Amino acid sequence: MPGDNARTKGFELKQIGVVHSSFRTREQVRQSNKDENVAEVEIFAEYADGLDDIEGFSHIIVLCWMHKSDFHSLKVRPLYHPDKLRGIFSTRHPDRPNPIAVTVLELLKRRKNVLKVKGIDMLDETPVLDIKPYTRRDKKEGVEFGWLSDKKYP
Amino acid sequence: MPGDNARTKGFELKQIGVVHSSFRTREQVRQSNKDENVAEVEIFAEYADGLDDIEGFSHIIVLCWMHKSDFHSLKVRPLYHPDKLRGIFSTRHPDRPNPIAVTVLELLKRRKNVLKVKGIDMLDETPVLDIKPYTRRDKKEGVEFGWLSDKKYP
Repeated sequence: MPGDNARTKGFELKQIGVVHSSFRTREQVRQSNKDENVAEVEIFAEYADGLDDIEGFSHIIVLCWMHKSDFHSLKVRPLYHPDKLRGIFSTRHPDRPNPIAVTVLELLKRRKNVLKVKGIDMLDETPVLDIKPYTRRDKKEGVEFGWLSDKKYP
Repeated sequence: MPGDNARTKGFELKQIGVVHSSFRTREQVRQSNKDENVAEVEIFAEYADGLDDIEGFSHIIVLCWMHKSDFHSLKVRPLYHPDKLRGIFSTRHPDRPNPIAVTVLELLKRRKNVLKVKGIDMLDETPVLDIKPYTRRDKKEGVEFGWLSDKKYP
């Protein structure tokens, strides 16, 4: 298994906020209706000015550090489709070499440093690393979904 | 400016690959036709097995560490629309608290541990952190683009 003797650099991450959701376990997330989950993303007060101009966007990209993840193999059984082993980079499985989640959420409201969002699948207390606006370059047409083509989710 | 006394955690990132593109400077990227740029994303050999099953996807999400970025302020002038200061989290400006780029690219071909991709706007030698498949949850409808609504790009 790679990881221990892989190249490691001095990339330093800062936690800029935290997710407040109702999920304590992956199983609770799995059983929920992901698209409908409303939750809050709190950005720490010292970063709040960075949220200015975000209100006009209907969707945002939230980057989180999946603090409960545990990288163990390059081949995994996807959480929603565990019938077959898949290369980790062709899945969204949390147990990856760098446990960074990328999630597109509907932005319902900004209240100072708190974003009310819809569509969340993150555990409560998940550290937030970045917020980005969802732009035209993120919305692709003519997409083929590979081994997920005949699956309903994700 | 936040950062120095902000919360910092022991999140450890591993470089899993590197971008090979023709861009040496941000200005070269800016002047290019981003959607047409073809380049290669090399995943280090020890992670190559994690790419299995990726071939069927027409688009992938590539996470990179923007190694030339320099966070200086929560308010920035967007590279393509410098007329007004904007909150950093409502822009895709590289000089952000955590300089992680999220880019959706067209996957043209996989050759073992090398992905040939289209649509790149990364500098040559940019470290790669993660590859994810672009799924239905990333493709949103009914999107509003906020202050970017009347801009052509991005």
